[in-house]
Amino acid sequence: MTDHTKLKVTEMGRMSVEDFRNSIKIPITVVLDNVRSMYNVGSVFRTADAFRLEQICLCGITSTPPHPEIHKTALGAEDTVSWTHYDNTLDAVSELRRHGFMIIAIEQVKNSIMLQDFNINTNQKYALVFGNEVKGVQQEVVDLCDDCIEIPQFGTKHSLNVSVTAGIVMHHFARYYIYGM
Amino acid sequence: MTDHTKLKVTEMGRMSVEDFRNSIKIPITVVLDNVRSMYNVGSVFRTADAFRLEQICLCGITSTPPHPEIHKTALGAEDTVSWTHYDNTLDAVSELRRHGFMIIAIEQVKNSIMLQDFNINTNQKYALVFGNEVKGVQQEVVDLCDDCIEIPQFGTKHSLNVSVTAGIVMHHFARYYIYGM
Repeated sequence: MTDHTKLKVTEMGRMSVEDFRNSIKIPITVVLDNVRSMYNVGSVFRTADAFRLEQICLCGITSTPPHPEIHKTALGAEDTVSWTHYDNTLDAVSELRRHGFMIIAIEQVKNSIMLQDFNINTNQKYALVFGNEVKGVQQEVVDLCDDCIEIPQFGTKHSLNVSVTAGIVMHHFARYYIYGM
Repeated sequence: MTDHTKLKVTEMGRMSVEDFRNSIKIPITVVLDNVRSMYNVGSVFRTADAFRLEQICLCGITSTPPHPEIHKTALGAEDTVSWTHYDNTLDAVSELRRHGFMIIAIEQVKNSIMLQDFNINTNQKYALVFGNEVKGVQQEVVDLCDDCIEIPQFGTKHSLNVSVTAGIVMHHFARYYIYGM
């Protein structure tokens, strides 16, 4: 029978905070457009750490570290992943565009591309924009984006939780950069 | 320029609760092994609704609906997705095996299979077991599983949030059943 003994944390080969800071990142920036819940902000930090992403732009009312509520779900990842705060999400998007990022809103819009159909170019830098828990990404921010991606959904509720959405999309992109699929 | 007008909820083509109940589900059961946070339980309900999964087994200390804290993140999905409570996760796993499910723990163990390398057989029914926020899936539950899947991680933290992990894995499996990839 296969040995399925659970690994100790020391057996998982995780990086130190210093090694993380010096490591080459996946060239993806996560933009949070007015995310209200610090639980969600912390969770996005934790996922961005796991997939070694470049940075997070915290925009508008999105809270910034250090904060005990963010720490509850980030569990220290708020100290590893680089972040910047912008009062206005439009400023973040404009600056990212100037730095050569392709800007993608994750939003249910006319002519959105389903996640599995989006062609990821691993020579490209992407900024992935996730929106407020109730309102989603603002229309004026969507209008500045190069494209919109949607996660196909088949149930009764109109959307997924934002930290789950961000997890699915970050994982999907990271896979292409790391495994080419 | 492409029209990226945000969709109204009525334009998203979501199902009614009754249509959901009568619909054919993806033959996946989610097993929560002593998940402590009702926020996580609610979020798993919401994701299972989005991907139209069969049912959720809430085991041990995992809370059950109806509960205001579960409702906060499930937003009604606790009324659409079927669920059962088991005092002991081992009983849930044994019963699922008798009903022909292949049992997969999502856990970091010796000889785990990386998510993208796991061959999904869409003629098979799967039970996906997710564990407690701190302790993960109990070793004795892992020992009863047919296989273990791990989400590759490259950062400093030892794991992802359980509702994010569940979201990534549910999405990955649902994609195979719906799109064959």
